[in-house]
Amino acid sequence: MAKIPVIMDLDTGLDDAMALLLASRSDAIDIKAITTVFGNQSVDKTCENTLKLCELLGIDAPVAKGARKGFLTKEIDYSTGLEMMVHGADGLGNKGDLLPAPVKKPDDLTAVDLMAKVLKESDEKVVILATAPLTNIATFILAYPELREKVRCIAFMGGAMYGGNIKPTVEANIGHDIEAATVVINSDIPKVMFPLDATMKVFMTKEERLAMKDTGKIGTFLAEAIQCYEEIYDRLAGIPGAVLHDSIPTAWLIDESVVKLEDYNVQIELNGELTRGCTVTDTARRFGGELNCKVAVDADREKIIKMHFDALNK
Amino acid sequence: MAKIPVIMDLDTGLDDAMALLLASRSDAIDIKAITTVFGNQSVDKTCENTLKLCELLGIDAPVAKGARKGFLTKEIDYSTGLEMMVHGADGLGNKGDLLPAPVKKPDDLTAVDLMAKVLKESDEKVVILATAPLTNIATFILAYPELREKVRCIAFMGGAMYGGNIKPTVEANIGHDIEAATVVINSDIPKVMFPLDATMKVFMTKEERLAMKDTGKIGTFLAEAIQCYEEIYDRLAGIPGAVLHDSIPTAWLIDESVVKLEDYNVQIELNGELTRGCTVTDTARRFGGELNCKVAVDADREKIIKMHFDALNK
Amino acid sequence: MAKIPVIMDLDTGLDDAMALLLASRSDAIDIKAITTVFGNQSVDKTCENTLKLCELLGIDAPVAKGARKGFLTKEIDYSTGLEMMVHGADGLGNKGDLLPAPVKKPDDLTAVDLMAKVLKESDEKVVILATAPLTNIATFILAYPELREKVRCIAFMGGAMYGGNIKPTVEANIGHDIEAATVVINSDIPKVMFPLDATMKVFMTKEERLAMKDTGKIGTFLAEAIQCYEEIYDRLAGIPGAVLHDSIPTAWLIDESVVKLEDYNVQIELNGELTRGCTVTDTARRFGGELNCKVAVDADREKIIKMHFDALNK
Amino acid sequence: MAKIPVIMDLDTGLDDAMALLLASRSDAIDIKAITTVFGNQSVDKTCENTLKLCELLGIDAPVAKGARKGFLTKEIDYSTGLEMMVHGADGLGNKGDLLPAPVKKPDDLTAVDLMAKVLKESDEKVVILATAPLTNIATFILAYPELREKVRCIAFMGGAMYGGNIKPTVEANIGHDIEAATVVINSDIPKVMFPLDATMKVFMTKEERLAMKDTGKIGTFLAEAIQCYEEIYDRLAGIPGAVLHDSIPTAWLIDESVVKLEDYNVQIELNGELTRGCTVTDTARRFGGELNCKVAVDADREKIIKMHFDALNK
Repeated sequence: MAKIPVIMDLDTGLDDAMALLLASRSDAIDIKAITTVFGNQSVDKTCENTLKLCELLGIDAPVAKGARKGFLTKEIDYSTGLEMMVHGADGLGNKGDLLPAPVKKPDDLTAVDLMAKVLKESDEKVVILATAPLTNIATFILAYPELREKVRCIAFMGGAMYGGNIKPTVEANIGHDIEAATVVINSDIPKVMFPLDATMKVFMTKEERLAMKDTGKIGTFLAEAIQCYEEIYDRLAGIPGAVLHDSIPTAWLIDESVVKLEDYNVQIELNGELTRGCTVTDTARRFGGELNCKVAVDADREKIIKMHFDALNK
Repeated sequence: MAKIPVIMDLDTGLDDAMALLLASRSDAIDIKAITTVFGNQSVDKTCENTLKLCELLGIDAPVAKGARKGFLTKEIDYSTGLEMMVHGADGLGNKGDLLPAPVKKPDDLTAVDLMAKVLKESDEKVVILATAPLTNIATFILAYPELREKVRCIAFMGGAMYGGNIKPTVEANIGHDIEAATVVINSDIPKVMFPLDATMKVFMTKEERLAMKDTGKIGTFLAEAIQCYEEIYDRLAGIPGAVLHDSIPTAWLIDESVVKLEDYNVQIELNGELTRGCTVTDTARRFGGELNCKVAVDADREKIIKMHFDALNK
Repeated sequence: MAKIPVIMDLDTGLDDAMALLLASRSDAIDIKAITTVFGNQSVDKTCENTLKLCELLGIDAPVAKGARKGFLTKEIDYSTGLEMMVHGADGLGNKGDLLPAPVKKPDDLTAVDLMAKVLKESDEKVVILATAPLTNIATFILAYPELREKVRCIAFMGGAMYGGNIKPTVEANIGHDIEAATVVINSDIPKVMFPLDATMKVFMTKEERLAMKDTGKIGTFLAEAIQCYEEIYDRLAGIPGAVLHDSIPTAWLIDESVVKLEDYNVQIELNGELTRGCTVTDTARRFGGELNCKVAVDADREKIIKMHFDALNK
Repeated sequence: MAKIPVIMDLDTGLDDAMALLLASRSDAIDIKAITTVFGNQSVDKTCENTLKLCELLGIDAPVAKGARKGFLTKEIDYSTGLEMMVHGADGLGNKGDLLPAPVKKPDDLTAVDLMAKVLKESDEKVVILATAPLTNIATFILAYPELREKVRCIAFMGGAMYGGNIKPTVEANIGHDIEAATVVINSDIPKVMFPLDATMKVFMTKEERLAMKDTGKIGTFLAEAIQCYEEIYDRLAGIPGAVLHDSIPTAWLIDESVVKLEDYNVQIELNGELTRGCTVTDTARRFGGELNCKVAVDADREKIIKMHFDALNK
């Protein structure tokens, strides 16, 4: 079977690292390019982390650096705050130094121009797998509207049907660039949203994390790195393991059966004082909006965790 | 045990009728006054319905007519729309004509002034049981701020921790007067919120509804009236019975054990385009606001349904 | 000619004091009651200031104490901020101690109930002259909707067609209780708005202020009191005198010719992050809203200043 | 003196045509590229109009087609509405057919990529003259943040210190893409805003318009085209002539003395229900924001009209 050409847009990040593992080992995915953006850490760090992980995992796709802040926001101060706590000061659980400095350099093109180049050159439609604020992707849509038709779909981790993580009703990837997310949601490109409601179900327990060490060098690094992530989820949310949000869209691309999708109308609140960034989802399909988004409403923890082990053992 | 003095603020309404049944038969509750407001129907109809039900149930408390619209809203057009569909054109499931026209008249005082009179004259603190838009109660708080200390608590059906009913994230009692609800939430009167998350669990099945007929005249009328309500919930929400939202605060006042309460920070979104009226509840207690509201997070369907039969059989 | 019955609603305040002077000496105005509210100072101080001025001016109308904060706002901290600077720590230019402590006491009724009593007892329609946040008046409208028809009009100092004073597009009386102002604007009571565009034109020069001293005890007190006000306007706005905002509605009631009125659609912005409280006025009459408000677009400084001297010399 | 390299971003449009006239005849301006955008008409028409005018005026700069809608908005329906009325169904006062179909074709590059190319290739900093919604320019800023430093300033017609034209407090170029305008205002590129307060002063009277016919073919076409524009301003705003908004930034670039600039803090309201898109300008410099924008507060009608005749007679 032919591999699906994919552009990954990441803010690497611990769960982005796990998504890269899955994608790099899959027979279904051909990583054409990786673009990086601010989010879990500054774009300088998420780009460097991505380069390091490409070398660790043997990924040879070009890696480009993208936006350092949202459309209308200032740069995040990563010296404090939740992002720092969750992914560590380096974005890799304070374990990034276990990896050598990358030899690979970022591409000369910007993230947006690299996306455009891949799409122009591809004969097939390309999937965009996004696990970060949607700034690069929205800028691409604005700058190259005619290339929309080369995108097969945008599968993005983000949003929540109910609840949130950076505010009671707001999830981080959406909340970090609400206007960019709206550009994506409003576009006519097919969209698949992987919200907290599904991703929070896919945690890796301590036992599973430690078992990764038995698989070799890559597993050992990842097990070390996500330890702090595991501790945070226990402390903040009482969840017995590290939540692998970003793996879910990749896992779905490899095996659709691991996720349950439903069609809903999703709109983003732009104006609320408390709820700005809320991904308002008409789960009752009672309010008449277009079914503009497929939404993952459930995910199979067991299968998705197993996919990570399969990848490590490959 | 001494009865608790109570003011009921209602937009009667089918589930308000069931709440009146519970309150009127309880040894724990002394209904000092009933105030009425727009909501499930116009205040003219909710007041007339209340008078009829007082005669049916033998309640002799004064009944006053209150607000016909929200602070900043226009009067609702009850000739169309969801309210009409749910509670019927008369607010009593199109079965109000089965009851005689009331002999009893509304009190000379307005709803707000009747509340003030009851509170001034009471030696004890009084509970306000609200099952409607909070317009009367908020106006009372603004007009008589010094009487706040005579209110033991405001127990109100309204809001949602997750989801909504008139919009994806907005519940009707809050959404019909968002500013009034905010006045209530912001006040230093103790508050107990009974949101959809809890009330949607308390439905009366068709079998239970029909069994009410065996209890006599009152049960027969109520069983007839809420039939349309049962059909709506089946059709709109796939729920196997009529949801008795408004009974829950009354049931709790009679027997605290039927509901599980937790302390949360609740704030109301005033500004959202999609989410205006959302009762943003920090269920993770992560965002630092004052725990300003007790919130019913669960309710015991079996017990609460049984309370209705106990009342009917009394 | 019969006098017009008037309820004054004040946050006294230096320019409120000047308005009281005008009203108390007019053959056209019968002050039926004075209600007080927070604004230029706390309601405790504005009520006390009003009582003092009633004794100074020989006004024997009842004075009631009203709201200490806006519908949705917290109490203002008057130990800092613009209000303090403009009207002094006592609300009377730090010269309130020149007047004896008032013998007169506030009425037993709340502001809202005193308004209702005056209206119920009046055979004629009553004008409400408001020079403060509209909290009392809006609460009255909500609590006694059936008394609306006894109000001839609400003439209020507030708003701005262009610009603002507490924010670039927001005026203080509106901005201090935006929801209350909206209740007033939305009501079907006739409304006359006296915005900054007109009131800023009516300043009393230093020479005029000092000339008040020659008229006797009252003029001497007022001249002392508003000195700081004069200095503030020079410093903050480069205006050569103390702006007598609150005198303008009273002056208009005495002599319509001192002001130019035009009919406009006025709406209040409830949702803006920067502009919340802006009194959006369709001065081009191009956008189709109802002409719901008469708006003072110009005022005759010379005539209005002279009215104050006529009052002092009476 | 060396000419200033300029990129013009237009939604041509009648006043854009007049701006092109000024720019094309100036010794101070070197038009490096023209980018087009929706606004006065669809981007297809504004691009075609620009091509026609380039041929009429002998401009040989590349012309690129840009955005057909704002960041978060749908495409405007130009079959109705104000835009159509003001600039005619073709955007050229229904006189575009007087010009031959253009031989010149749009550039292969998008508007954004053409901007980037010009900036990359320029040794000097380049001025961006914008007379349209700021969509192209904001997309450029997002897509090529590192090229910001090659922009000398963005001089844009748009906004209003007081008032508006498409709403009481909103001007069209800002209101048509509020998020894009915010990206521009928030950027650290030097900005000069030419708001309605200044541009409304520069109208061309009927006599002046007709006098253009005496200057030859170009003047004759422009005089025909802007006739409907003149009629609109008379009817809608009572202004005795066609307002040449878009000429003002160009006129200023040619001769700074024709406009009075002041430094202010300008912010754009993103959230208001009535005021969304208002360019809130702290003209009193009392509210502490950074002086982030030069703002034209006055313009010299006589001089600017004369500049058009000088251009026609060149």
